[in-house]
Amino acid sequence: MSEFLELLPPAQALNLFLDQCEFSPQSETVPLEDAVGRVTAESVISSFALPSFARSTVDGFAVRAVDTHGASETLPAYLKLIGEVPMGGTPDFELGRGECAIIHTGGMVPEGADAVVMVEYTQEARPGEVEILRAVSLGSSVLQPGEDVQAGDEVIGRGVQLRPAEIGGLAALGHAGVNVAVRPKVAIISSGDEVVPPGGPLSAGQVYDVNSYSLHSLIEQAGGEAVRYGILPDDAQAFKSAAERAKKECDLVIFTAGSSVSVRDLTATTIDELGQPGVIVHGVSVRPGKPTILALADGVPVIGLPGNPVSALVIARIFVAATIQKMVGLHTSRPKPAITAKLMLNLSSQAGREDWIGVKLTHSAEGYTAEPVFGKSNLIFTLANADGLMKIPAAANGIAAGEMVEVELI
Amino acid sequence: MSEFLELLPPAQALNLFLDQCEFSPQSETVPLEDAVGRVTAESVISSFALPSFARSTVDGFAVRAVDTHGASETLPAYLKLIGEVPMGGTPDFELGRGECAIIHTGGMVPEGADAVVMVEYTQEARPGEVEILRAVSLGSSVLQPGEDVQAGDEVIGRGVQLRPAEIGGLAALGHAGVNVAVRPKVAIISSGDEVVPPGGPLSAGQVYDVNSYSLHSLIEQAGGEAVRYGILPDDAQAFKSAAERAKKECDLVIFTAGSSVSVRDLTATTIDELGQPGVIVHGVSVRPGKPTILALADGVPVIGLPGNPVSALVIARIFVAATIQKMVGLHTSRPKPAITAKLMLNLSSQAGREDWIGVKLTHSAEGYTAEPVFGKSNLIFTLANADGLMKIPAAANGIAAGEMVEVELI
Repeated sequence: MSEFLELLPPAQALNLFLDQCEFSPQSETVPLEDAVGRVTAESVISSFALPSFARSTVDGFAVRAVDTHGASETLPAYLKLIGEVPMGGTPDFELGRGECAIIHTGGMVPEGADAVVMVEYTQEARPGEVEILRAVSLGSSVLQPGEDVQAGDEVIGRGVQLRPAEIGGLAALGHAGVNVAVRPKVAIISSGDEVVPPGGPLSAGQVYDVNSYSLHSLIEQAGGEAVRYGILPDDAQAFKSAAERAKKECDLVIFTAGSSVSVRDLTATTIDELGQPGVIVHGVSVRPGKPTILALADGVPVIGLPGNPVSALVIARIFVAATIQKMVGLHTSRPKPAITAKLMLNLSSQAGREDWIGVKLTHSAEGYTAEPVFGKSNLIFTLANADGLMKIPAAANGIAAGEMVEVELI
Repeated sequence: MSEFLELLPPAQALNLFLDQCEFSPQSETVPLEDAVGRVTAESVISSFALPSFARSTVDGFAVRAVDTHGASETLPAYLKLIGEVPMGGTPDFELGRGECAIIHTGGMVPEGADAVVMVEYTQEARPGEVEILRAVSLGSSVLQPGEDVQAGDEVIGRGVQLRPAEIGGLAALGHAGVNVAVRPKVAIISSGDEVVPPGGPLSAGQVYDVNSYSLHSLIEQAGGEAVRYGILPDDAQAFKSAAERAKKECDLVIFTAGSSVSVRDLTATTIDELGQPGVIVHGVSVRPGKPTILALADGVPVIGLPGNPVSALVIARIFVAATIQKMVGLHTSRPKPAITAKLMLNLSSQAGREDWIGVKLTHSAEGYTAEPVFGKSNLIFTLANADGLMKIPAAANGIAAGEMVEVELI
């Protein structure tokens, strides 16, 4: 199972792959306090208006605006004080012509009143009477029912990732929980005769497993639930049985094998034979990450990542994160966190291939500058030393120093 | 306890407050798979070099570079094949002059060898002999020991928020866990006679508690552990006993009370009497959020947030998140996720006051445009409709349409 001769650029490869995937996300209701970062499984319709009653935005006196017309410091209006609005309740009176009532911020504007005068613009005249020192217009200092949302409004769409503001909005509408997409289970299958798990001893010639852990973190950040399947020996039967178990138990299967040709071939063959239609993309026109595999095995998406730690993370950002997002039905296209920065060095690249380069950002009065962090793609700390990644598009054969570039934070 | 007459801008108020806080973060060791987003409690020193041995970056033959000099397709060099490097082990042979050995990607370069020739540039001559079709230079296709990090290098500083790349780096160094700052416990004390928890019934004149939930989410995102203390009645004794309990049980206490003058006064008095030195800042030159309180009670920081949901979130982003970050010892100044966008409308503001305005971002070929989302600060869905917040600095009295602005994603 060799790489295809015609390599697609990442965006096209991703579309070709995702177009063949059909996901029907499961949903679950989670308490509001656990919902931040989750993605709504259905739209939220307001069952009542917000605010649900006319509320005062200040401390003062509920009035009929017409009764204050012409009022000033020198010529106050005198209104009869008929009561006080209880917080959290309904006033048991109706305001008539020439009357007013004490009201607190958030209190319900009583029947008959249509404005509130701030306490600063009033003065007690004698018991039962208030001097109004300033005219107010209709609706002044009153939040009208439905000014935030109307009953029946779609207030949060389906596929929206919940932030503190949406959590607050859900609470305002009385929801103690919210229906969100279940986090897809993502299998990580690592392999390599030379690879051992961290925490144990290391013999000469061995290396610690990096990708299982860096990918675990990335998958969790992207909204998946990572399940590690350990480190397989470079053996066809071990690959086949782990892949079959992962396919049965998880919603997405990730292979992160070694970089040797024989192991790459073993991975590709295992993936291709796992189910129908098999490998859809084998090899992508991107650096790092050319030997990426995108496949579908009887409805379960399978992604073969390159073995080098930096390549694996760069490619997982592009393909694994996007697949998880499609699985949970993420619909909105909120901006990706990115910084616009001035590139400090000339970067050359091969036209027709997309390049991703780690950069260090520095802030100054004129904005950000971006300094590439060079290093072979097997050196994980070159990526740990970067603030973000910048792309050299396939169409370009480089970017000149001084140009402004978009840096995606990692 | 009234607002101070001289109001500080947010950055100065924050510094004045944090300068008086002394935090000594507790630390705990968490497994690597739970460590993403956490903040290191101590720096990580590499106990060995990475890679720890000379590794091949390709599949091919380990050679002495000098033996390949002058080799070409037409005039190959002939080398004696003396063995194969085992993956994950040490070769049991040393390479002599005129000799070569099979090596796989990631394999240990044997003693005596100093370069690797890719298999593509070789050809089997006869059994036990390999034709080298291209000359390679010293170190070609070899990752040298320590090329990523040296033994004794500080590879991750103290106070660094861990991303997938650092998690990978820790795994590469054999760490199965990492020492991180304990997440500070943050008390949320809500109040209001008219406020009821979501999930239950709502009577006329009542509203659901928004801030406890939106702040809970924001605190968790900022790295704290939120503890809700329920909704207090507007009563001095209830405020006092909840505040004392929260001060004892938590590392940071947040008040989010109503907006009426009497409740604001009650909050300020409660906070000021909770411990020494009491209120440090009362009122900040910012909109929304002017009535913010920053205090210290016997070593426990206490923050009084404005009652309006939008104001509470905007102010919590500025003060609560920064306090949590200082508590966990976050040292690095990684760029905040922000988008540079072209403002589509003139915005005026009062000079001397910092304004924060929700904006909706739209992407086009020329980059992002920012459209302000107007709405009173009690309308939570105006914030839910925004992609981010932009600042009008205190020194400006507005920003003109067409100017480029920084939008912090929310």
